[in-house]
Amino acid sequence: MVILTLNCGSSSAKYQVYDWDNKDVLATGVVERVTAPGSVITHKPKGKDKFVLEKDCPTHKEAIELILNAITDKEHGVISDMKQIGAVGHRVLHGGDKFTKSVKVTPEVLDVFKSPAVCGLGPLHMPANIMGIEAAQKVLPNVPHVAVMDTAWHQTMPASSYRYAIPKEWYEKYGARRYGFHGTSFLYTAKRAAVLLHKDPKDTNIIIAHVGNGASMCAVKNGCCYDTSMGITPLEGLVMGTRSGDMDCALPFYIMRQTGMTADEMDNALNKKSGLLGLTGLSSDRRDIADAAEKGNADAQLAVDMECYRLKKYFGAYLAAVGPVDAIVYTAGVGEHSALIRGKALEGLEHLGIKIDPKKNELSNTGNAETCISADDSKVKVFVIPTDEELVMTEDAFAIMQGTYDVHTNFKYSFQDPAYRNKAREAGLAKELEKNPELASIVVRP
Amino acid sequence: MVILTLNCGSSSAKYQVYDWDNKDVLATGVVERVTAPGSVITHKPKGKDKFVLEKDCPTHKEAIELILNAITDKEHGVISDMKQIGAVGHRVLHGGDKFTKSVKVTPEVLDVFKSPAVCGLGPLHMPANIMGIEAAQKVLPNVPHVAVMDTAWHQTMPASSYRYAIPKEWYEKYGARRYGFHGTSFLYTAKRAAVLLHKDPKDTNIIIAHVGNGASMCAVKNGCCYDTSMGITPLEGLVMGTRSGDMDCALPFYIMRQTGMTADEMDNALNKKSGLLGLTGLSSDRRDIADAAEKGNADAQLAVDMECYRLKKYFGAYLAAVGPVDAIVYTAGVGEHSALIRGKALEGLEHLGIKIDPKKNELSNTGNAETCISADDSKVKVFVIPTDEELVMTEDAFAIMQGTYDVHTNFKYSFQDPAYRNKAREAGLAKELEKNPELASIVVRP
Repeated sequence: MVILTLNCGSSSAKYQVYDWDNKDVLATGVVERVTAPGSVITHKPKGKDKFVLEKDCPTHKEAIELILNAITDKEHGVISDMKQIGAVGHRVLHGGDKFTKSVKVTPEVLDVFKSPAVCGLGPLHMPANIMGIEAAQKVLPNVPHVAVMDTAWHQTMPASSYRYAIPKEWYEKYGARRYGFHGTSFLYTAKRAAVLLHKDPKDTNIIIAHVGNGASMCAVKNGCCYDTSMGITPLEGLVMGTRSGDMDCALPFYIMRQTGMTADEMDNALNKKSGLLGLTGLSSDRRDIADAAEKGNADAQLAVDMECYRLKKYFGAYLAAVGPVDAIVYTAGVGEHSALIRGKALEGLEHLGIKIDPKKNELSNTGNAETCISADDSKVKVFVIPTDEELVMTEDAFAIMQGTYDVHTNFKYSFQDPAYRNKAREAGLAKELEKNPELASIVVRP
Repeated sequence: MVILTLNCGSSSAKYQVYDWDNKDVLATGVVERVTAPGSVITHKPKGKDKFVLEKDCPTHKEAIELILNAITDKEHGVISDMKQIGAVGHRVLHGGDKFTKSVKVTPEVLDVFKSPAVCGLGPLHMPANIMGIEAAQKVLPNVPHVAVMDTAWHQTMPASSYRYAIPKEWYEKYGARRYGFHGTSFLYTAKRAAVLLHKDPKDTNIIIAHVGNGASMCAVKNGCCYDTSMGITPLEGLVMGTRSGDMDCALPFYIMRQTGMTADEMDNALNKKSGLLGLTGLSSDRRDIADAAEKGNADAQLAVDMECYRLKKYFGAYLAAVGPVDAIVYTAGVGEHSALIRGKALEGLEHLGIKIDPKKNELSNTGNAETCISADDSKVKVFVIPTDEELVMTEDAFAIMQGTYDVHTNFKYSFQDPAYRNKAREAGLAKELEKNPELASIVVRP
């Protein structure tokens, strides 16, 4: 049996096909320019070359049909029959405070997603997420569809973490509170970190930095989310590729008075034109920023300094929040690949029991292995753990289909098995180790 | 010679008369309802009863005349002749990034205060501050007037602390950056903490929590401000009496879309109707909140929890920011008097070297003495230091008048003398010690 996972954005549909019985990824891909002319699918079957096909997809329904054609195609396909698909896991941005875990999609669940109390919290993403689910249900009417929300993991936060100090009725009437995002990634990396620590997740305190183009941090206490840096929207918290992160809430209004910008223009500027891009005017890509800083660009150097300083302050804040921590985890694109950002953010924290080994940190530039980059005498371990949100979606979909799904804090995922290996990554790592045997010194095998 | 200090708000003028030669406060007072009918002065001469007089003050000029009449009054006055006033120190909210220290007021300085680059940053306070200076100059034309800015102390922050991750031109064109406030209080308490530690200020790392109705924190590295929680305005940072502090900057726009509120209404709600008042609907006064929480009011308990949790996260963030710290300092109304807030905010931080002694913490409820409330085995000292912003204003005014004023980080204040005693506070403390001799066990005498 295979599990299909789908992540529908306003003009895209990403997917993964997972072979449940052999615990292996069969294919991944994306349809871009959905709803626009010139839609194109890029399909990557395991062990084969990419396959690219242009075909207009006026709605997400055609995009999902295109995906199903690709995965059952005689030449490029990975399954012979759509009936092999046992369940579909859908990524959904926002569950408000209505869902504390993944859920089988029913008409009632869809109504909640469409309600202002939930859809209103993610006006840019939720309509596309909902369209994707409804389209997939039409094309695959006989399998369970499961919604996996970015916010669900964070529902264990105490009120002192999730409430804002605003008029109470804004919370009660409009749901104005911290929700947090990247929950699926935090769930995966928190559970993997517990495995690497040889501990039960409920006995672990962990701080996770998911640093990609979007970036957020999570303080994990006794295996559950205790606090997170993104808020009611993904704007709050760390300095990101194009988002400002934390800032005086009076600042947008000050700039609007000075410039005559509208609220919508400000919203767009804070989400799309701020962060590293806004500071440098160059790029939101950390590699470009690091290169420019290296060449003496002062704006780029400031951007590096600010991103790392903000991370450092959150590490300190969450150390205070959850008590002694077992491990710090870096994940996602920048977290997995930028030794510069990782090292600078944890610089000078020896007095808090955190000490990076610079050589190990430099070595860790692989998305294929879990590595430990802390010094041997560091009280707190520092891990780099490649995230795998699709696997969480796959397992939640499977477990809900089977009726074995418990609340996510108890549910055992296959990747909690110490013997767990991601086959594609193991293959990638083997190649990397051939080129650089020293890499083996930082790879953690539980 | 005496130094007069003035703090003019939009409808008030606070003052203090300081006897420089005897290092003693001669009188304090306030004129309220300035520019409104029924203005009233409350004048408190040293060792005598309060004196209250109603007299309309259509402008700040009449208010300052009223103050001068009160302090030279035959019965209630404290000096015989206005000519004894050697200098006037004026509290000014905002110096933008134009002033890194206190400054003698010249026409050029006033022009800077009135410029959009400075006045625009404090549109509510700056016009009143400027009116107060101009009115005082008219009434006392022959003495130097000195401006002491709440922002000046913070000008040593590195760019990674003061910049926001927003489009660069917002910083360059409109001065959109972190400025910080309560600088005069941080300067005073940072220097006093160094005295209590028997260290040169430049060898100290300190975290100061100024918690009053408004509240902010300051990370002091090598005796200078390294970071602070208030931002371009006093809205950012801690949970305050009526201000929200930190929050997702997308939240105000979300609420405006839901409610139809205007930007001005939102600004007012975030500054005047949020914080503890917004959370509880009861009060912004910590004593009311604590009482209600004690009686089982869940909103009040959440407000206490949130205020303390936000403080705790900043303590952690600043520990990471400035490295090992010598001391944590609580100051201002709540910081000096609320054992509940102080204790809860530092609860569970033993792993970071911070340990409060609960009994000492309970004992410290005096605005009259510097006390130490950390446990004997706490690596980091925790002090409660009553602030004295007027004294900083007085000394800056005196030094600038004398031409002995150096940049504030080098300038030696009389209160850095280990033998320094605030006479009024010493008298108050003596009375308190009579009632409760145990208090002596926590009083720190350098």
